[in-house]
Amino acid sequence: MSEVISKSKLAKQAARTMGNLTTAQKNEALLLMADALLTEQQAIIEANGKDLQRGKELGTSASLLDRLALNETRIAAMAEGLRQIVELPDPIGDTLESFDRPNGLQIRKIRVPLGVIGMIYEARPNVTVDAAGLCLKTGNAVVLRGGSSALFSNEKIVEVLHGALTRSAVPADALQLILSADRSSVDEMLKLNGLIDVLIPRGGHSLIQNVVNNASVPVIETGAGVCHTFIDQSAQLDMAIRIGINAKAQRPSVCNSMETLLVHEAIAEQHLAAIAEAFQGVNVELRGDERARTLVPSMVVAEQSDWGTEYGDYILSIKVVQNLDEALTHIRTYGTMHSECIVTEDAGNAERFLQEVDAAAVYHNASTRFTDGFEFGFGAEIGISTQKLHARGPMGLPALTSTKYRIYGSGQIRE
Amino acid sequence: MSEVISKSKLAKQAARTMGNLTTAQKNEALLLMADALLTEQQAIIEANGKDLQRGKELGTSASLLDRLALNETRIAAMAEGLRQIVELPDPIGDTLESFDRPNGLQIRKIRVPLGVIGMIYEARPNVTVDAAGLCLKTGNAVVLRGGSSALFSNEKIVEVLHGALTRSAVPADALQLILSADRSSVDEMLKLNGLIDVLIPRGGHSLIQNVVNNASVPVIETGAGVCHTFIDQSAQLDMAIRIGINAKAQRPSVCNSMETLLVHEAIAEQHLAAIAEAFQGVNVELRGDERARTLVPSMVVAEQSDWGTEYGDYILSIKVVQNLDEALTHIRTYGTMHSECIVTEDAGNAERFLQEVDAAAVYHNASTRFTDGFEFGFGAEIGISTQKLHARGPMGLPALTSTKYRIYGSGQIRE
Repeated sequence: MSEVISKSKLAKQAARTMGNLTTAQKNEALLLMADALLTEQQAIIEANGKDLQRGKELGTSASLLDRLALNETRIAAMAEGLRQIVELPDPIGDTLESFDRPNGLQIRKIRVPLGVIGMIYEARPNVTVDAAGLCLKTGNAVVLRGGSSALFSNEKIVEVLHGALTRSAVPADALQLILSADRSSVDEMLKLNGLIDVLIPRGGHSLIQNVVNNASVPVIETGAGVCHTFIDQSAQLDMAIRIGINAKAQRPSVCNSMETLLVHEAIAEQHLAAIAEAFQGVNVELRGDERARTLVPSMVVAEQSDWGTEYGDYILSIKVVQNLDEALTHIRTYGTMHSECIVTEDAGNAERFLQEVDAAAVYHNASTRFTDGFEFGFGAEIGISTQKLHARGPMGLPALTSTKYRIYGSGQIRE
Repeated sequence: MSEVISKSKLAKQAARTMGNLTTAQKNEALLLMADALLTEQQAIIEANGKDLQRGKELGTSASLLDRLALNETRIAAMAEGLRQIVELPDPIGDTLESFDRPNGLQIRKIRVPLGVIGMIYEARPNVTVDAAGLCLKTGNAVVLRGGSSALFSNEKIVEVLHGALTRSAVPADALQLILSADRSSVDEMLKLNGLIDVLIPRGGHSLIQNVVNNASVPVIETGAGVCHTFIDQSAQLDMAIRIGINAKAQRPSVCNSMETLLVHEAIAEQHLAAIAEAFQGVNVELRGDERARTLVPSMVVAEQSDWGTEYGDYILSIKVVQNLDEALTHIRTYGTMHSECIVTEDAGNAERFLQEVDAAAVYHNASTRFTDGFEFGFGAEIGISTQKLHARGPMGLPALTSTKYRIYGSGQIRE
């Protein structure tokens, strides 16, 4: 039996216990996990050092090494993340609907765990801790398959967490880490219907597309964000610039940052120079369409391929549009249904934009950077769903649950 | 461009209009559709005759021909089904959550259509009408791919419905029927991410497994039901028999009917003969395990393969179990997480069963046959979900929707 199958079987078996634990039992385990991370932080940092060393030898970029690196501050943040999950309300067991039928049947719709969640993700070791905490709090077992670049770190972290779980009511088997760095271990997880209930991929475009295209296990797609901000004719210019700069440059590497700015022609003709200057002032490279470049010749030419690109960097494409309709068409054509914003003082245009744009989060006069579990008040998030099924947008604890109907009868049969 | 792609593109385009229609506009279209079915019933019956004729030539079984056959009564029922959908509340636009953040952002979670729903199904032409009605009411466009055995019927029905839609605000393109009977048209739908938002397969095991195993578009799995009834030691015998007979024999072909009866040994020793007699009295063939056959030698031997079989027929497997634990283990091993029942007077055992059995619907003292949209009071249903993601159990209108977050700001940026 392969590692993936044997560990998934253990997880499935543990999932049965998980669904019957009390909130207090799960919270106690989370606190023990947090404590253990701090107690064992030197061992974790040491293991992480091996990953960093190997990364350097393989010529990994400085920014990737930075995401991979652990230190006392980052481990403390991971432990604090677990403590925050303790504070979140436990959704399991909640009665979502309750109705009695004319024949006397009492039907109750109850929140239950999903069962076994498969997480497939890349470098950052904090995802290991976050995912473990969120899945266990919601009564799920979890099979983690992290990237090979963080393998030493992940292995040590899970060893530490297992140590904590053995002192709790949560079975240690509910937390499984796949050690095989071979691509085939991912392929195997994708087809493990019956043992894994749901897959959640987190990482770059090719990782997510591989899961979406090849999994027979149900998937919650997360990820790609080609987000737009549309500055409408009636926008307050200073607000538009403030929102645009924040959406682009506050943290360009994340999925809710802006990639394309759409500017109404009336604004563009008067103010595109000022807008461009503001972005250039925070070191953003601008790539404009023909009309934008006529107004601001210092912009690079935006190629056709720019409009669909998630730069994840200090680069912004700019297009001048005639009106709201042209902005809506552009977003429909190139957007990824993640987060989209209109800056306008025209209530009718705002309403049309919020109604017609098909995206997880649509904003009027606020930065797309707010699409985030913490910013929405959900606490830690397992990711941002970009699909329409099950969950859409930032996923809090309820996104990690299913439901079941409990029906109480007194001998009813169907006529 | 293939038929599947060109029709899916038309559906996607129509979906944009669909999401903005009022409830009144959608209801008017549904009533026009119902009227048109009645006005054109002779043409539909004529087209159906061609399907029946071809079915006979191909040697189709009498029961399948019966499911395929349309007459005035059945067409009236289809029209009535559409009128019932008119009466259901429209979930689109509902505000599901509403919260304001400390920074002043106002966040609203709103129900929106899924977009384009792909339905892949088999013989019964009433599914064509049901699916069209349910999808349009929820503001979705739908691409229907019915079985080749009902092709003439489905083509005429959709032609009639299109005629009705051209007199309504609902774009006729929102309803698409794939005419290609080639298997490749199904394969193509499975991979149409970006044009089809969700696939819902309805039909036999192999149809559903093909969709689940090969689709990259998100799927809502429906279908297979190997449902159990457990007669516990403290059960009222008459109630247990009444529920069992109903669960098995009221309509054996459907997914919520019982396939295996589990009997506590204390009951079995005293009453298995009476139980067997009751089932044999309604022409149910019994297949027993060794202990059951010792008590009632007239039973056929249940082979290992019987325990996982959805007979869909007047056949029942019977197993004598030592206690609740053995019943739970059997259900966990062979059940399909559809509908499971315990008949007991022991409140503690009932609670354990409802808590520990992992299924869409768990019953105490009532027939599993109640797992149904109408019986739950949801009105028409698009199917019964047997997966844990998005929807589980009978799917009413909300299962055909997604959500989006509308965020109202006044210039907020993220710190």
